[in-house]
Amino acid sequence: MATERLVVVGGDAAGMSAASQARRLQGPQELEIVAFERGRFTSYSACGIPYWVGGLVAERDDLIARTPEEHRARDIDLRTRTEVVELDLPGSRVRARDLDGGSEYWTHYDKLVLATGARPVRPRLPGIGAHGIQTLDDGRRLVDALERTRGRRAVVVGAGYIGVEMAEALVLRGYEVTVLHRGEQPMATLDPDMGGLVHTAMNRMGIVTVAGAEVTEILADEEGRARAVTTSAGEEYPADVVVLGIGVEPRTALARAAGLPLGPSGGILTDLSMRVRGHENVWAGGDCVEVLDLVAGRTRHIPLGTHANKHGQVIGSGAGGGYATFPGVVGTAVSKVCDLEIARTGLRERDALEAGLRFVTATITSTNTAGYYPGATEMTVKMLAERRTGRLLGVQIVGGAGSAKRVDIAAVALTAGMTVEQVVSLDLGYAPPFSPVWDPVLVAARKAVSAVRAAGV
Amino acid sequence: MATERLVVVGGDAAGMSAASQARRLQGPQELEIVAFERGRFTSYSACGIPYWVGGLVAERDDLIARTPEEHRARDIDLRTRTEVVELDLPGSRVRARDLDGGSEYWTHYDKLVLATGARPVRPRLPGIGAHGIQTLDDGRRLVDALERTRGRRAVVVGAGYIGVEMAEALVLRGYEVTVLHRGEQPMATLDPDMGGLVHTAMNRMGIVTVAGAEVTEILADEEGRARAVTTSAGEEYPADVVVLGIGVEPRTALARAAGLPLGPSGGILTDLSMRVRGHENVWAGGDCVEVLDLVAGRTRHIPLGTHANKHGQVIGSGAGGGYATFPGVVGTAVSKVCDLEIARTGLRERDALEAGLRFVTATITSTNTAGYYPGATEMTVKMLAERRTGRLLGVQIVGGAGSAKRVDIAAVALTAGMTVEQVVSLDLGYAPPFSPVWDPVLVAARKAVSAVRAAGV
Repeated sequence: MATERLVVVGGDAAGMSAASQARRLQGPQELEIVAFERGRFTSYSACGIPYWVGGLVAERDDLIARTPEEHRARDIDLRTRTEVVELDLPGSRVRARDLDGGSEYWTHYDKLVLATGARPVRPRLPGIGAHGIQTLDDGRRLVDALERTRGRRAVVVGAGYIGVEMAEALVLRGYEVTVLHRGEQPMATLDPDMGGLVHTAMNRMGIVTVAGAEVTEILADEEGRARAVTTSAGEEYPADVVVLGIGVEPRTALARAAGLPLGPSGGILTDLSMRVRGHENVWAGGDCVEVLDLVAGRTRHIPLGTHANKHGQVIGSGAGGGYATFPGVVGTAVSKVCDLEIARTGLRERDALEAGLRFVTATITSTNTAGYYPGATEMTVKMLAERRTGRLLGVQIVGGAGSAKRVDIAAVALTAGMTVEQVVSLDLGYAPPFSPVWDPVLVAARKAVSAVRAAGV
Repeated sequence: MATERLVVVGGDAAGMSAASQARRLQGPQELEIVAFERGRFTSYSACGIPYWVGGLVAERDDLIARTPEEHRARDIDLRTRTEVVELDLPGSRVRARDLDGGSEYWTHYDKLVLATGARPVRPRLPGIGAHGIQTLDDGRRLVDALERTRGRRAVVVGAGYIGVEMAEALVLRGYEVTVLHRGEQPMATLDPDMGGLVHTAMNRMGIVTVAGAEVTEILADEEGRARAVTTSAGEEYPADVVVLGIGVEPRTALARAAGLPLGPSGGILTDLSMRVRGHENVWAGGDCVEVLDLVAGRTRHIPLGTHANKHGQVIGSGAGGGYATFPGVVGTAVSKVCDLEIARTGLRERDALEAGLRFVTATITSTNTAGYYPGATEMTVKMLAERRTGRLLGVQIVGGAGSAKRVDIAAVALTAGMTVEQVVSLDLGYAPPFSPVWDPVLVAARKAVSAVRAAGV
């Protein structure tokens, strides 16, 4: 009956969005949809795990956007606990393994979607196999471990978004938290001067941060449970629980084995309609692909739920006989540590250098609301602009309430290719509870305009 | 010594920003700057008055960005309590009156800046002269009146930004508040469907709102104090204090008498460098001018402190021998009533009709944060897009924390002339404490894309 068969590998944000959107466009008479997922859940908000760990979100189920049953009710043949272990592109088929029963079978596709996600990096270190070393890969195991240990001391390795969010979550759970990170400052997704503000805030909330820390070993007790982390500086940090937050990498073993094109970060390379380059009937999206960075003019691996959902939407449109594209990203990311909001978009200094751009920077500190409004807190904005043209290149913001989403102003301006002079004239929302009369982003832009002028060509 | 003389009429945001910026570019040897201000204060944040009235801002002085003394210390010859009563453009001079001494004098200018602001509309009604009828024109008098009456019942006439903000301020002061407004819903700066959400929220916080109310008379007691407001429906609303918030109009009597060009709303018309059209050495800015609405393609009177400050900056650059322009506005405005945030940018339905545009609308309700994040509240976004082209025309937002400044996304997109399809692809900040994985603005844009497609040409 069905004229075509769509096979989706991976049942999370990108995969299930793609399946759902394709189903919206074509009914089961036109398109059969089979989706394979290794786990028991689908459409799971991994981004919510730190808040579940921190106790802000009560139930894991709250993080599930749509259950397997809901997908099945929409005529998607969803096979959970089933892993795709091989792609046969010339044969237009995939080999699937039932993880509970152990049986394997080949199944045919007309259209294939790869949404295999990313996996947390686990460095090869002595002792890394000890019990009590957690990643966000399995939130349940992490929460169980925290409930079991009820320890007082946690060591977080890594101070990116996940590391910082996990540090906050562990503080909320009553742990004494030490964050070990390699760089000069936490949040290496910011320039070090801005990361320094995060550093100060983390210390103020009682989190110990250790810069330039190279972890050398995990020490375990007689029962094989992690009890301390050592660094190349010879320090030993006692830990009842160790959380690794040193990033993720695209999960692309299947794609690599099948000879699909991979980028410099190991992510699958696609065209603007999220088709795998050179493969008309194969799409890929979510944390397993690289995306085009519109400001730097190169692809990057940026694992973020919001991109995964957009990819799924675009893929589902294409696979369902429609048309949509994902033009790329500008590198927007937001986060928080307690009351401190952290945001970036576009290029940091090192990105701009790497992209071959000459630039000026401008950093200002203002307030999130009118200065006289009760509860006004500081907001620091750093802006990068291209020297000759004055084109906006990037913005970083650290501050109180309202700081994070303010970066959206710059994200849109970057997408539109605006100069900092154009940014100064933007008609942004002003009222005393929401902004000083000159929004902090505009104040930064004014300073950037002066810097561009002073720099000449 | 000084080669040129700059005279500034009006010592508030636009005027004093202009004076300050000109002084930054040219020292007193090059440019003498004389500024006339009727009141005792300068650079006063009128936008902050509702928060002072509501008790959120303790002291009036908190609302003063820069005192007369500070301006004088920067070599600006500031003459407070001095009103300019006549412009002699052919003679390049203005006539000033010392409001305390009563003396008058002519003074010469090479360059003239008009920043005479706006004044609250006071309708011609029986009883309008009664004591206890307040506007925001004199915040001190209003606060004194409230402290004197310590009444229980307040009537606010008008439900625009000022009316709504004043209603909240009076609630905070313990008044029973009734808001009388002409339109179908409060906040006529929004379409009625969105204004209805504000209506509901105001009622929920105990504010009585009366739609379609035409005030006919202010009734006074024997001592001439307002005691009630009557409407054409024959209703009588008892009041210990009456606050008028029915808008402001450009204060342009001087400009009109001097024959300067005025627009349809009575505001002075300028070119893009804020020079008065046809007058090379006369600038005007702030609440006394009309600004170009970039979306509607016409001038409007939009009195807002943020525009006034930008105008001042541009004027000061020009008058100080530099160069800057104010390209126009897209009509962004934000406000709040208690926890409800209200925002708009671009065109409402009636604006689009008036501009001759064919459009579709899309309205969605989502949440300000990830749905599972604690404290998630509703956010409703309405979007207008041009039918044939899909160009974004306007956005209105009503909802919980984070709703108001989200309108900036649309403000930048409008400035860039983006289509709603381009908006869908924007790389906006996502993390569970700040946004669902699809930002509400993107959800609205997705629906608008569908509406544009469904509408065809």
